[in-house]
Amino acid sequence: MPNLPLGFGDDVSAVSLGKDELLVIKTDMLVDKTDVPRGMSLWQAARKAVVMNISDFAAKGVKPVALLVALGIPQKFTAKDIEQIGKGLNSGAREYGAYILGGDTNEASDLVICCALFGTCSASLLMKREGAEPGDILAVTGEFGKTAAGLKILLENLPVPSEVENPLLDAVFMPKARLKEGLALAVSRAVNAAIDSSDGLAWSLHELSKASHVGFIVERLPTAPEAVKFAEIHGLSHAELCLYGGEEYELVLAIKPELWDEALDAVKKAGGSLIRIGKAVKERGVWLKTDKGAEPIEPRGWEHFQSCTGETRG
Amino acid sequence: MPNLPLGFGDDVSAVSLGKDELLVIKTDMLVDKTDVPRGMSLWQAARKAVVMNISDFAAKGVKPVALLVALGIPQKFTAKDIEQIGKGLNSGAREYGAYILGGDTNEASDLVICCALFGTCSASLLMKREGAEPGDILAVTGEFGKTAAGLKILLENLPVPSEVENPLLDAVFMPKARLKEGLALAVSRAVNAAIDSSDGLAWSLHELSKASHVGFIVERLPTAPEAVKFAEIHGLSHAELCLYGGEEYELVLAIKPELWDEALDAVKKAGGSLIRIGKAVKERGVWLKTDKGAEPIEPRGWEHFQSCTGETRG
Repeated sequence: MPNLPLGFGDDVSAVSLGKDELLVIKTDMLVDKTDVPRGMSLWQAARKAVVMNISDFAAKGVKPVALLVALGIPQKFTAKDIEQIGKGLNSGAREYGAYILGGDTNEASDLVICCALFGTCSASLLMKREGAEPGDILAVTGEFGKTAAGLKILLENLPVPSEVENPLLDAVFMPKARLKEGLALAVSRAVNAAIDSSDGLAWSLHELSKASHVGFIVERLPTAPEAVKFAEIHGLSHAELCLYGGEEYELVLAIKPELWDEALDAVKKAGGSLIRIGKAVKERGVWLKTDKGAEPIEPRGWEHFQSCTGETRG
Repeated sequence: MPNLPLGFGDDVSAVSLGKDELLVIKTDMLVDKTDVPRGMSLWQAARKAVVMNISDFAAKGVKPVALLVALGIPQKFTAKDIEQIGKGLNSGAREYGAYILGGDTNEASDLVICCALFGTCSASLLMKREGAEPGDILAVTGEFGKTAAGLKILLENLPVPSEVENPLLDAVFMPKARLKEGLALAVSRAVNAAIDSSDGLAWSLHELSKASHVGFIVERLPTAPEAVKFAEIHGLSHAELCLYGGEEYELVLAIKPELWDEALDAVKKAGGSLIRIGKAVKERGVWLKTDKGAEPIEPRGWEHFQSCTGETRG
């Protein structure tokens, strides 16, 4: 399509509605056998299917307006199952101010929930993956690693004390999209480039690096204390949990240094947090600053897990 | 959602973009085991997934602009299979002037193709399911029954001479959306109510009747000659093929009698045809006029078929 306002590989797609206004659209499909871990209810799975899409709008600073939902439903599902799915979808939408306008229902072998989300925004406020500049402050809207740890509990049956387990499982079952943060940041005009972290922090940094033709140095890993604790208990690397997890819906942002205070203020006023974790540099690539210098962060991303077999792929 | 410009059960969903402009959106999911009969190629299945959605836009008189496609791909599919799907999707979109802007790919047990289609239109031109009035002329944009006959060839192995078989299978494998007809009719302002016939002519008439609070008398069945021939060869009812088929993408229209000539002219200029088949009446219901009076047309619709087993469902 000619004259697209946003590159093909960004978090969402957009078309011009004339003047400064854009129509922003996004579709994302949830398939139970790769996206729904054991222990997650149908209500939670349906809510997550919506949140996944909202998160991409959050990363672009676009307010979601409405969504359509197409369902593939296995024959064995009961009317009550389908009701739970409907309620989960609606909860996910209303949590972020969006409405479900319609959809389509089919029979399928897997549970398939396909959301298409719509909104409009001012072209000048849209936060893109491209645009980061050397010297920008690298920041995220929350801590990482809880989802990766939670999935390890569910898929590998790793035991932990309940005060650690609860927040880790909650991160898996009840993911949150950083919509209010994204909307506030867009209005602040402090952001040069943005992406959500649904494929993991490392992967998102590499995507941002590719789209913006810059590199990033992570000076401080934003690992959640619960993930650090989980790593200690099981002798795991907390950097691994923080960088190479996924299904986490924080925003990863390159922020103009001269507008850092405005960005911080905007996110705080919206009730969120903004954590400075590093900086953008001229040389392409992604590195973690260590005592010995800088070691490369690999372009490894989140791999979907296989069903309830407790096996992770790849 | 408050102040929706279009009822929840219409062919598409719509939200106001301010003033007279609407954003029109639609999602429809194709699942191979219920929507793709034996003999249909992946290219054709993918093209059909797009055409299904375009047809709903055609019925509302809305020009499609862009679509997103979410795919569920079985593990056994090859790169070539996926390429064929991509090409079919693009062909379906370009045939009707739309562009594919993005999407999402997942692993699934079935082939699942979920399209989300977008466009804008003037609210005053949108053709709705509601609005038909007693006295309106009932019309369709083409003949019916070829798809039902073609599916019987594929699913029940009914033999026919090739000069009959080819157009019947073509109707199944290469469905067409009546977009140019729908766009021309919208501009003519001659249409009081409209629906597409994807669930069969009988079902569509009942839906139109329910939404518009009127009834319809079909005075002349628009059965395609090839379907009549097929019915004769196999001792089937051609009325059954015409009324209770499905996966046919004609438009079913209630037209203001005083603007019939304008409607006919608009469709002809667009290169299509408009067939008068009956009229709208005050009493709710749908009837077929016969020598003996009028017999009810049942609210039976198209049932999806089961895979390649040759069995149709329920």
